[in-house]
Amino acid sequence: MNDAVFAGWFSQNGNGEMTGTTWVEESGFLEGPVMITNTHSVGVVRDAVIQWRVAHGQPDPTGYWWSLPVVAETWDGWLNDINGFHVKPEHAFHAIDTAHDGHVEEGSVGGGTGMICNEFKGGIGSSSRKLDVKDGGYTVGVLVQCNYGVRPNLRIAGVPVGKEIPEDAAYASAPFEEVDRGSIIVVVATDAPLLSQQLKRIARRVSLGLGRNGSISGNGSGDIFIAFSTANPHAEGGKTVKDLKMLPNDAIDPIFAATVQATEESIVNAMVAAETMMGIENHKVIALPHDKLRAVLKKYNRLVE
Amino acid sequence: MNDAVFAGWFSQNGNGEMTGTTWVEESGFLEGPVMITNTHSVGVVRDAVIQWRVAHGQPDPTGYWWSLPVVAETWDGWLNDINGFHVKPEHAFHAIDTAHDGHVEEGSVGGGTGMICNEFKGGIGSSSRKLDVKDGGYTVGVLVQCNYGVRPNLRIAGVPVGKEIPEDAAYASAPFEEVDRGSIIVVVATDAPLLSQQLKRIARRVSLGLGRNGSISGNGSGDIFIAFSTANPHAEGGKTVKDLKMLPNDAIDPIFAATVQATEESIVNAMVAAETMMGIENHKVIALPHDKLRAVLKKYNRLVE
Amino acid sequence: MNDAVFAGWFSQNGNGEMTGTTWVEESGFLEGPVMITNTHSVGVVRDAVIQWRVAHGQPDPTGYWWSLPVVAETWDGWLNDINGFHVKPEHAFHAIDTAHDGHVEEGSVGGGTGMICNEFKGGIGSSSRKLDVKDGGYTVGVLVQCNYGVRPNLRIAGVPVGKEIPEDAAYASAPFEEVDRGSIIVVVATDAPLLSQQLKRIARRVSLGLGRNGSISGNGSGDIFIAFSTANPHAEGGKTVKDLKMLPNDAIDPIFAATVQATEESIVNAMVAAETMMGIENHKVIALPHDKLRAVLKKYNRLVE
Amino acid sequence: MNDAVFAGWFSQNGNGEMTGTTWVEESGFLEGPVMITNTHSVGVVRDAVIQWRVAHGQPDPTGYWWSLPVVAETWDGWLNDINGFHVKPEHAFHAIDTAHDGHVEEGSVGGGTGMICNEFKGGIGSSSRKLDVKDGGYTVGVLVQCNYGVRPNLRIAGVPVGKEIPEDAAYASAPFEEVDRGSIIVVVATDAPLLSQQLKRIARRVSLGLGRNGSISGNGSGDIFIAFSTANPHAEGGKTVKDLKMLPNDAIDPIFAATVQATEESIVNAMVAAETMMGIENHKVIALPHDKLRAVLKKYNRLVE
Repeated sequence: MNDAVFAGWFSQNGNGEMTGTTWVEESGFLEGPVMITNTHSVGVVRDAVIQWRVAHGQPDPTGYWWSLPVVAETWDGWLNDINGFHVKPEHAFHAIDTAHDGHVEEGSVGGGTGMICNEFKGGIGSSSRKLDVKDGGYTVGVLVQCNYGVRPNLRIAGVPVGKEIPEDAAYASAPFEEVDRGSIIVVVATDAPLLSQQLKRIARRVSLGLGRNGSISGNGSGDIFIAFSTANPHAEGGKTVKDLKMLPNDAIDPIFAATVQATEESIVNAMVAAETMMGIENHKVIALPHDKLRAVLKKYNRLVE
Repeated sequence: MNDAVFAGWFSQNGNGEMTGTTWVEESGFLEGPVMITNTHSVGVVRDAVIQWRVAHGQPDPTGYWWSLPVVAETWDGWLNDINGFHVKPEHAFHAIDTAHDGHVEEGSVGGGTGMICNEFKGGIGSSSRKLDVKDGGYTVGVLVQCNYGVRPNLRIAGVPVGKEIPEDAAYASAPFEEVDRGSIIVVVATDAPLLSQQLKRIARRVSLGLGRNGSISGNGSGDIFIAFSTANPHAEGGKTVKDLKMLPNDAIDPIFAATVQATEESIVNAMVAAETMMGIENHKVIALPHDKLRAVLKKYNRLVE
Repeated sequence: MNDAVFAGWFSQNGNGEMTGTTWVEESGFLEGPVMITNTHSVGVVRDAVIQWRVAHGQPDPTGYWWSLPVVAETWDGWLNDINGFHVKPEHAFHAIDTAHDGHVEEGSVGGGTGMICNEFKGGIGSSSRKLDVKDGGYTVGVLVQCNYGVRPNLRIAGVPVGKEIPEDAAYASAPFEEVDRGSIIVVVATDAPLLSQQLKRIARRVSLGLGRNGSISGNGSGDIFIAFSTANPHAEGGKTVKDLKMLPNDAIDPIFAATVQATEESIVNAMVAAETMMGIENHKVIALPHDKLRAVLKKYNRLVE
Repeated sequence: MNDAVFAGWFSQNGNGEMTGTTWVEESGFLEGPVMITNTHSVGVVRDAVIQWRVAHGQPDPTGYWWSLPVVAETWDGWLNDINGFHVKPEHAFHAIDTAHDGHVEEGSVGGGTGMICNEFKGGIGSSSRKLDVKDGGYTVGVLVQCNYGVRPNLRIAGVPVGKEIPEDAAYASAPFEEVDRGSIIVVVATDAPLLSQQLKRIARRVSLGLGRNGSISGNGSGDIFIAFSTANPHAEGGKTVKDLKMLPNDAIDPIFAATVQATEESIVNAMVAAETMMGIENHKVIALPHDKLRAVLKKYNRLVE
């Protein structure tokens, strides 16, 4: 729990918050969890991470890790009473206490609950790629909290899904404001031995995955990405020289490709997993209709049945 | 000729050179032409720009503009005898002397002559968008020198064109090295009154256009972009306060969209315009076969005839 | 209150937090107050700024300003019970409600209460320069919350004050940990019509002022700076083209010089104003002794009496 | 010769050129020599580095190293006929062929020939620090080509030397233009096992050394720094995972201090070593007068005789 990992971050469009990134940029390390919440709750979650650390952890060698927590946000004020400030420290404690390996819940869960993506219900999505043995056999995992975009731009598998599902009676979400106010937070994790310099490169590939799905990264969108590697777990701390492993840049292309692909897929997974939701003030956001999606994919010969 | 324009740049993958960008980043201005050549000729072209300026221009108010020229490159060593250093100052002088408004030649011309893109013949491509009057009626123009990518990643209009045109006898380029050694230089020009801060945002949207075409921005690729605005032509120079125009960030989304779309289209235009070429040592690179491209687009219902 | 101002920021050493900077970097604007607190209270202050805005403000044109507050911190855990989390939303509300023009309190006040600077008592310091009329007559004001450095490095007016005041009985602070854990947050304000691009340049000059006082910007230090201009008060918001004023880069040197000088002086002012303090657990930090300082300055012929 | 080394760079004020930095930033590596010349000769030197590599080197594993040379410049047009373009490829070849370990010539040599620093003769300067064994015993070496600044700002050892040596008849350089047109290129080399992320931090400390000498990093100055480490000599290239050494961030402060100190001293060394020069058109620049410098240092009790 007290091991920092190499990390890098990138802001494709910084209309959002990811605290702690100034130290990630400076040190090249991520020293605690990555938390994702809504825009008005970043602060409570941030301080709660420190409070949890003070209460639970043995001091790290320097006694200061976890004091610059990484907490990101997307805006959920259309479905959620964001100005009610309902997120409390206990929610953050619970999230840390119950963090676990394995399956990731997708759709309208956690910070993803109130998300809207391309004018359909959004949320949490995840995807991963396992590289060929000849490329090192590494795993690249992506998690998104996706809340961005307008419907006409949505592409899935290269197909203009957004344009094919117009906002008629059958497929209308509530008429929320015309301006794109969303965001997407993306976390990329890998066990490939990449240094911080290289993980910044990984973070920058997330944009290419967004591009595949049609995003223009609108002015109102906080499209902020962080990547980390679990290799070299004991790299930070102390004053003695560390032994590290590094994958050379000449071998990085398969990880780039995996990042782009898993980003593309994570967004689709988030939208496919999410269900139609009724939020505050009878604001309704419909889920991406599966039957219609299948029909559109079939129309463009991208669905093999 | 002596008017600096607001500009911003972005490096999606910096395995390449674009001189002059340190000053663009610092000042927010582009003070002369953007030149594009091959990797081993950046220097000769750079100094030639200064030499041309010394020979032709009246001194600008400070006498120093054009002394940090912007010169970018892509690697053409598969088709061109790059180590022969055949580009001479005269070629740069000629390029400046004959620069003109209007139609842009596409395909295997100028710096684009020896380009390879997604394992087909690449080169110069261009595209533009004219915004609706309600969005300001501005024009966004994109020019690419495209030389990047491997065939399996190529998507056109969302269709997996690269995978559908295998490297069999009919469609093989010479078996050049497996590693992606290419690059893409992108120049975005607009008459929208954007400041340098905003033009950096524009430059960062180019990545989304690349993503649409399937790029993973490989390690060996120099994917470097510069954007400038011809509005506010007299913003730099002198010591008296200048009057400027600025489009607010809240109105910038249509320009973002136009940039993504025109980038996507420019790359396709470059590939469609280029013709099969035989270079040094009998290295042959085939053009994207138009008939096959049409067939693939039709297969995926993206071609209306 | 609802006018965004052009702003830029810089991290000389990012072992610290300044929330909201991702949007400052993206947009070029600062949209609300700059708050400074201790490391473990950044979150509560951040959310409180939003809460205050929701409670008090008329909505800005888009309804979203102030949702990415700028809150910075320095670590005060030697003198303050930082893990007691004593800062509450009310303290932030009070700070905003009582913000005023005019004289700035210096020394151990506000966020500066628990500061230690070069192993003397630190805190809040301020300084300003008024430019000559021929240079535009602009004002440059600097405010620091200074908490950085080790004694041997301290220079004042070029004099090695730190080395001349050893930690003997008379001048010892409590033997706090050897590692530099401090930070310095610097805010630069000006009425010169500078754009965000230029304000980043201003922020980067703060480092030169730090250098004059002997700082090496240690690994443990969060040396983070933000600069803004009150000119062009209505630049952001809406969709209609704005008229701006800009001071050309060629006229910016006097503002650079003023920033360096006022930074240098602000740090000295903070130390001179602060008084010896006894904190938690009988941790004592002595003030820079005025008599000894005068003696040292005199020794090096830098004090005219 | 074919080993890339970890490197990082920083632009304190980017009114200058350092080619190749886009790849240094992306890859974290420096793959060939760092060349320094005058502003109008960057191109010829850059291409000559590639030409030398093609002529001499065995191909590196990928065959592409040295194709993005790092070449920096400062402007020497007051003393040198810069528009005569007198630097030829042969001069670059000679510089590479005769590069050697050991003593560095200082003052008006090489690229430093036409330099002016704080209105005295500038040039090449160098300095180094050897760390204590307890801090790892590493060496930090700094080389500057210094050409920046105006006289009133010059401080040496904290003493206002510039103000004490007015431009009267005895100490006047030719009345060159009032605007600061200079620059300073700084190269920091170390054998400490630092990664690229950390070397960027080192490069950023150079500014603190400049600050000590009074610089305001004027608008016209290209203050661009690069740092590299000779540890981990075989880190780049190939596709197999590399074993590296890294000094943890917690142990980096002595290297920060050494960088600041050696920068401060290098500039002084350059000025002290340089001799009065008469250049083109009878432009004369006087050397920093040693006797006067000693007198001023003595006045401020900074010279022990």
